[in-house]
Amino acid sequence: MDKVYNFSAGPAMLPREVMLKAQKEFTNWNGLGTSVMEISHRSKEFLAIARQSEQDLRELLVIPDNYHILFCQGGARAQFAAVPMNLLGNNTIADYVDGGYWATSAVKEAKRYCTPNVINVTRERDGKRAILPANEWLLSDDAAYVHFCPNETIDGIEITDLPETNKPIVADMSSNILSRPIDVSKYGVIYAGAQKNIGPAGLTLVIVRDDLLHLAKDVLPSVLNYKVLADKESMFNTPPTFAWYLAAEVFKWLKKRGGVEAIYAHNQQKAALLYDCIDNSSFYRNDVHPDNRSLMNVPFQLANSELDDTFLAEAMEHGLHALKGHRDVGGMRASIYNAMSLEGVQALVDFMVKFEKKYA
Amino acid sequence: MDKVYNFSAGPAMLPREVMLKAQKEFTNWNGLGTSVMEISHRSKEFLAIARQSEQDLRELLVIPDNYHILFCQGGARAQFAAVPMNLLGNNTIADYVDGGYWATSAVKEAKRYCTPNVINVTRERDGKRAILPANEWLLSDDAAYVHFCPNETIDGIEITDLPETNKPIVADMSSNILSRPIDVSKYGVIYAGAQKNIGPAGLTLVIVRDDLLHLAKDVLPSVLNYKVLADKESMFNTPPTFAWYLAAEVFKWLKKRGGVEAIYAHNQQKAALLYDCIDNSSFYRNDVHPDNRSLMNVPFQLANSELDDTFLAEAMEHGLHALKGHRDVGGMRASIYNAMSLEGVQALVDFMVKFEKKYA
Repeated sequence: MDKVYNFSAGPAMLPREVMLKAQKEFTNWNGLGTSVMEISHRSKEFLAIARQSEQDLRELLVIPDNYHILFCQGGARAQFAAVPMNLLGNNTIADYVDGGYWATSAVKEAKRYCTPNVINVTRERDGKRAILPANEWLLSDDAAYVHFCPNETIDGIEITDLPETNKPIVADMSSNILSRPIDVSKYGVIYAGAQKNIGPAGLTLVIVRDDLLHLAKDVLPSVLNYKVLADKESMFNTPPTFAWYLAAEVFKWLKKRGGVEAIYAHNQQKAALLYDCIDNSSFYRNDVHPDNRSLMNVPFQLANSELDDTFLAEAMEHGLHALKGHRDVGGMRASIYNAMSLEGVQALVDFMVKFEKKYA
Repeated sequence: MDKVYNFSAGPAMLPREVMLKAQKEFTNWNGLGTSVMEISHRSKEFLAIARQSEQDLRELLVIPDNYHILFCQGGARAQFAAVPMNLLGNNTIADYVDGGYWATSAVKEAKRYCTPNVINVTRERDGKRAILPANEWLLSDDAAYVHFCPNETIDGIEITDLPETNKPIVADMSSNILSRPIDVSKYGVIYAGAQKNIGPAGLTLVIVRDDLLHLAKDVLPSVLNYKVLADKESMFNTPPTFAWYLAAEVFKWLKKRGGVEAIYAHNQQKAALLYDCIDNSSFYRNDVHPDNRSLMNVPFQLANSELDDTFLAEAMEHGLHALKGHRDVGGMRASIYNAMSLEGVQALVDFMVKFEKKYA
């Protein structure tokens, strides 16, 4: 097989450089004669990884000192329960801004614990799917927090503004964390499954502000309790050490590439290349308004959906993998997270142009 | 570094053969040109791993058809909450057989959800720590289930008999699953963190009987709900795919070695070698009664604890790693899970004899 470009939405590709290093030291890490996954999470060697990764992430996202970084398990789905169980306190209402599939999924789980005030922010604008500006979201005065999902992997929507509120803002950043600069101080909790921009599936990142650690419900399982995890520095139970190690390597890679500002510029360039290709053709179509298009996940349809299978088969022959759209949506989707190169997006665009010429 | 033998209690060593195969195909699995951790859990390639691993595990442990196998996250610690939240139904009492550190930890978490009937089964016999036979455990008539931990990694205790009861028996087999044959039909739920006998940390196995899937509490987070996970075949959320793949490889390795019966014979041989060395010396000591000694975790003390650091340093020079006892216990501990070879235990014993001669 020649060079492969992997557009999987998640678990997604990891930086080639990181994967080659991990392969090289897979059975003999740090000269120990064993794999990093075969040593105790409490060994001084692993604790060094834990400390360095936290420090690097703090630097990359400019995370203030009054925020804890937790490395946990369970994915964003676990956080759909952990967020209300940790943050509601005696409150029974929380704002849930609904802009797509994952925001809706979070609402469903939150209903076990509170009455979500669901704010549908999807609108049609210029015949495209758009998101209401944050200053028009109808937040409730009684909400314990405001939850939203700034990047919808399935819908291909990204929300880049924040409401003005004195309530903690909680964001599911699974699919756009580290892809663009953010002001962490504006959030109460940021969480993210690792399998898009951080590392392999099985690791979940939670960034939580100090003052939100004391509201947990009695029935909250300890493994999801932010205070327990913060007090134990994410070692209340055995963490997913190999995934954590890979995340640490991804953070190092990102720093070497110039950090989040640099990768953001790169991500904008990649997305522009692909959206331009789609917009300059009547053969392909993307239904999201340009103001809300995701930099990370680009869903697109072929005008003639009968060609879908042919498109996927020929793409595969060109080393362009995992372009099939989500099963609930159909069509195509190219996920172009941090680890995807401009070269990879160019290869996809070249193929799309060629495919159009062949079948249009 | 010459050959290394890694006695870590967990995350523990994995079979060398499995690690070398995983290394080889780390960046190009199954000819795809990508890592197995970079593909969708819903791809046909990953689903084949999921299916095969379930089938292999079912064969290895002779798991009846009325049991579901769940591949989840959160470790045994998550199950400490998941078990009562899934199984109590309207009951408020559960039996907790307490034979050591981990059983006690399970009790602590269970108290959030029920009134545990704690049955302390540790007794002194012949000056050693022993476990009361199961037919003498004072079970409650009102308990929803009976929970116990058949192998205590820190105490070095193994419980091999089961009480006669019509209540579901729930066992935390994190540190002895697949090390000896069991009769699964006698259990309601078996769970195990992967990081000792299954694979890397971050994967948790749950084997649960059909009729126990319908008792979950409303406040149970969906990611810990046995019914949700069973209905979705462990893909309610993104599973830790790389850990699952490695577990699948470990299952294949175990089958090739002759299955659980064969590894059990091997484990008995290893343990006998090490316990004999300890018992034939007044320089070393193990405080557990021979009837209840763990085949997996062998804690031992030096008569002169001032030699502890020297022992650990010289062991390390001999390629014998991670022998330091748990921080709550001190002394030494050799964990000799399935992946540890007889050769490794022999190397440890040879070193211990030599060390005794030098310092006794």
